[in-house]
Amino acid sequence: MFKQISSIQNPLIKELFQLKEKSRTRKKLGRFLIEGQREISLAIKGDYKLDTILFDSDIIPFNQLQSLFDTNTIDCVEITKEVYQKLAYRSTTEGVIAVAKSKIIALENISFNTATPLILVAEAPEKPGNIGAILRTADAANIDAVFIANPKTDMYNPNIIRSSVGCVFTNQIATGTTLEIIDFLKSKDVNIYCAALSDNSEHYHNQNYKQSSAIVVGTEATGLSNQWLENSKKNIIIPMQGEIDSMNVSVAAGILIFEAKRQRNFK
Amino acid sequence: MFKQISSIQNPLIKELFQLKEKSRTRKKLGRFLIEGQREISLAIKGDYKLDTILFDSDIIPFNQLQSLFDTNTIDCVEITKEVYQKLAYRSTTEGVIAVAKSKIIALENISFNTATPLILVAEAPEKPGNIGAILRTADAANIDAVFIANPKTDMYNPNIIRSSVGCVFTNQIATGTTLEIIDFLKSKDVNIYCAALSDNSEHYHNQNYKQSSAIVVGTEATGLSNQWLENSKKNIIIPMQGEIDSMNVSVAAGILIFEAKRQRNFK
Repeated sequence: MFKQISSIQNPLIKELFQLKEKSRTRKKLGRFLIEGQREISLAIKGDYKLDTILFDSDIIPFNQLQSLFDTNTIDCVEITKEVYQKLAYRSTTEGVIAVAKSKIIALENISFNTATPLILVAEAPEKPGNIGAILRTADAANIDAVFIANPKTDMYNPNIIRSSVGCVFTNQIATGTTLEIIDFLKSKDVNIYCAALSDNSEHYHNQNYKQSSAIVVGTEATGLSNQWLENSKKNIIIPMQGEIDSMNVSVAAGILIFEAKRQRNFK
Repeated sequence: MFKQISSIQNPLIKELFQLKEKSRTRKKLGRFLIEGQREISLAIKGDYKLDTILFDSDIIPFNQLQSLFDTNTIDCVEITKEVYQKLAYRSTTEGVIAVAKSKIIALENISFNTATPLILVAEAPEKPGNIGAILRTADAANIDAVFIANPKTDMYNPNIIRSSVGCVFTNQIATGTTLEIIDFLKSKDVNIYCAALSDNSEHYHNQNYKQSSAIVVGTEATGLSNQWLENSKKNIIIPMQGEIDSMNVSVAAGILIFEAKRQRNFK
């Protein structure tokens, strides 16, 4: 019916621990861990393929697992509390961890269901909490794609999955170098709006985002690279009227994306 | 010229460590710690009174300290690396920590420079990172006040100071119970807009925020208390068009505040 593993020395468990900890292992094996019922459900809905579901039957009994997931086609492994805690990331938790196959979309395979896509680009974002918040915003706005330029981490970092509350699975996400993404956007005639202060920057709310638009945000520390600024249709700024000259990057991205959505009448 | 302290067993250092760690000690002594040059400068600009500045002369020599702060009127104490690390909160750091006097503004002492203030209210926010991001947004938008209803922590928590990059000192902030804040807003004829899904909620961008307005956000987990909903002029929602039914609270607050700013033409 299902395997049982009770030792944290078990080779599979050791390998899964590496998947949790190391981006390199995730890339090498093309696999990553998903913790939590909602997150796993969103991954399945997002066409992620699961190899294995590990469950702590003290937290979630097998019959409840059966009601949530297709346990006939996914290998199920019962694990002890000790093994579960070795693999789990959260303190409050739901007793279930899945091993999923990475699904990296290459830029050239990105497709749009609309003639005027709205895209968010983040260059070299660092903090998983900010990336997670950005992905939640992208989901809420139902934008057409999120591109991460020059990523500092892989998108299957458990901190990103957690802080995105699973929205890493609900958005169409691609990664690439800044130049690759600029080339892609130009090939699709997407207008590039860079959130950046420059001589010719204009206030964000005076631009028109009804045509194909990519809104590009950089890091709080260094902003956007020159490559972006040289290829933008317009550099845009959020007016800063206080003592401080920057906002949280995920808040800034939210303000810009929702101004575009407002102009598009949320269609 | 200035005192020197080299032992972490020194009674003053022990007391300051408690100030860093414990909200209760901050309340009891009416003091808190500020770390970082920019943060201290913003506090001074915000009329906070400093008792003491502690500095690690290996990181910042006294003559540099003199160029930054009025070392004639503030007690300066040179501390060793070990003492500094005991008190410091950040890993990368600037060698300077100030002891400041708390400046809690009572609701009744809040005053506005405009007949149509724009106010942000957050009820029972929990994560210091979110509170910090909200305070940065409030600073950038130069709104008239931030009210924290039923606070779960004091505003001088070092995590809040850090994540606000000092914006806890640049905004007019008051705390109070939800009822106290509702009474205050009503006494000032401020329109209350609650970010909440209810039978009669309307899309946020279809409301007019040009009159005196308070935008009220709750927690991601439980939303706003009924007291707020019963006293709102209108419940407003950000349209959610994805798989997930919530956004990061600081992103949502940013979108709502900047829609109000846009309608007011950033005046």
